[in-house]
Amino acid sequence: MKSVQIVEVGARDGLQNEKEVLSPQAIADFILRLIEAGIDRIEAGAFVSSKWVPQMAGTEEVLRLLRDKKMFKKSSYSVLVPNEKGFQLAIDHSVPEIALFAGCTESFSQKNLNCSIEQSFERFRSFAPLAKKRRIKIRGYLSVCFGCPFEGEVSEKRVFSLIQKFFELGAYEVSLGDTVGVASAGQVRSFFHKLKKQVALKKVAGHFHDTRGQALVNCLVAYEEGVRVFDTSLGGLGGCPYAPGAKGNVATEEVVYMFESLGIRTGIDMPKLLEITKWMGTQRARPLPSRLGVAGLLAPRGAI
Amino acid sequence: MKSVQIVEVGARDGLQNEKEVLSPQAIADFILRLIEAGIDRIEAGAFVSSKWVPQMAGTEEVLRLLRDKKMFKKSSYSVLVPNEKGFQLAIDHSVPEIALFAGCTESFSQKNLNCSIEQSFERFRSFAPLAKKRRIKIRGYLSVCFGCPFEGEVSEKRVFSLIQKFFELGAYEVSLGDTVGVASAGQVRSFFHKLKKQVALKKVAGHFHDTRGQALVNCLVAYEEGVRVFDTSLGGLGGCPYAPGAKGNVATEEVVYMFESLGIRTGIDMPKLLEITKWMGTQRARPLPSRLGVAGLLAPRGAI
Repeated sequence: MKSVQIVEVGARDGLQNEKEVLSPQAIADFILRLIEAGIDRIEAGAFVSSKWVPQMAGTEEVLRLLRDKKMFKKSSYSVLVPNEKGFQLAIDHSVPEIALFAGCTESFSQKNLNCSIEQSFERFRSFAPLAKKRRIKIRGYLSVCFGCPFEGEVSEKRVFSLIQKFFELGAYEVSLGDTVGVASAGQVRSFFHKLKKQVALKKVAGHFHDTRGQALVNCLVAYEEGVRVFDTSLGGLGGCPYAPGAKGNVATEEVVYMFESLGIRTGIDMPKLLEITKWMGTQRARPLPSRLGVAGLLAPRGAI
Repeated sequence: MKSVQIVEVGARDGLQNEKEVLSPQAIADFILRLIEAGIDRIEAGAFVSSKWVPQMAGTEEVLRLLRDKKMFKKSSYSVLVPNEKGFQLAIDHSVPEIALFAGCTESFSQKNLNCSIEQSFERFRSFAPLAKKRRIKIRGYLSVCFGCPFEGEVSEKRVFSLIQKFFELGAYEVSLGDTVGVASAGQVRSFFHKLKKQVALKKVAGHFHDTRGQALVNCLVAYEEGVRVFDTSLGGLGGCPYAPGAKGNVATEEVVYMFESLGIRTGIDMPKLLEITKWMGTQRARPLPSRLGVAGLLAPRGAI
């Protein structure tokens, strides 16, 4: 049976880039609903400075609200951790997986993380061994893998070597971000075609933004090359505040619609997913970017 | 060399479904700019009732403004013609190609054309032979081929038989419309896989709307099955006033971006195309649906 794994990043990468700050209760509800719809890999929040990212200020409270929920404990959730302080919080909350995040260009790294690429890996090295010891899984994120708003083209060789750096750090998977949504189908095909000569593609994920309307096609092309894990965001929530022009993540429902239609299983219940989109639409002033989320499925005969 | 043909439908299918009514001069400028960008198949307008479709009321004037332009005369342009009266105007204006349009379900046909499917073909038969005699090319359009807002699922068998009806009428090509943008990648793959056992796919075109964010993927999957002609609309202009929930056509620039990146030539100049999108954006109150059109290409290093 053909299948893909969906990693729902709406509750972190998505909400982090929205104007509206959702309450911890609303975020916890959101996460439970996602799990109920069949999503079992979820980014649940970030232990980052609430001064810089007020949308994530409630992550500790979100985890407290969820910690007694069986469904949540059974799911594979992760929390983004930028430094040792954040890692300590992950330990305090018994988080099973941490996400570590680096840029692929020096300009992006400086503007987003306020340090060089090497310095960000130095930081990670200060706590990654302890994570391993405590059996906390590490997921790596690389931003601007397919193009950078500050430096333009990004060398594939550099991206490939940063992927290796994450594996050396102990990451079990590295998510490759098209943070500004500039990747084209041809670029994605060529990128993964070369990458799989160096790395087993089951150890990477595709993370596409829809800034130029190419995200869904990029998921399909990456799948055709062998990628089996995709980061998606319910309703197309998200973007990147440090990357000018970056629009939302590819919408979970649009990805599920495509893959399921091709007989590639996601394990996700589409009507339940669209219910969540509807609900999320009520939490914000603007309509969600997802086209399927707004249009819904085709009404059955006679419903209109 | 791999290639596809783009049929730009923004000046008809696109503008016809916009609130703003562009002046004949603006539409003529639009068409000339499209040709300058390398598009040589263009839907230039429609000879329909200005009472029902005020956006197309200027088609005669548009053609008068363009008739002395060399570029335009060299292009393959068409005008939509619903009946004998419209056909007479096509003759008066020496239009080289007419587009005829039928629905795939009785409900859609009744609501959109105010007649049964059979009656619409009856109408066409009253002037199609004369078109052939005068060497006016006939292009068929079928609406709601992949799903109908009134009847739900549409039988492939029925669509295939209507395609044949158009060929019997003398059409050289039939454009297959996903009018409500409900087609999934799996459905498109299966549809064309079956269709090519009955019809040479070089005689059909894919016409996808992006209502559920699937249009670009559907173009790619249709291409993979053998389709080589795609109807697209600059900036994603368009929709369908008689099909509830139908959003714009797939955006020309997003299709070109994808195909060119895969080494599949379109003959279209992307920077020129994006200039037209920018200009069209100034002609309407809302931003255009095209994501690439709004975001633009990635800025070169140092431009931000």
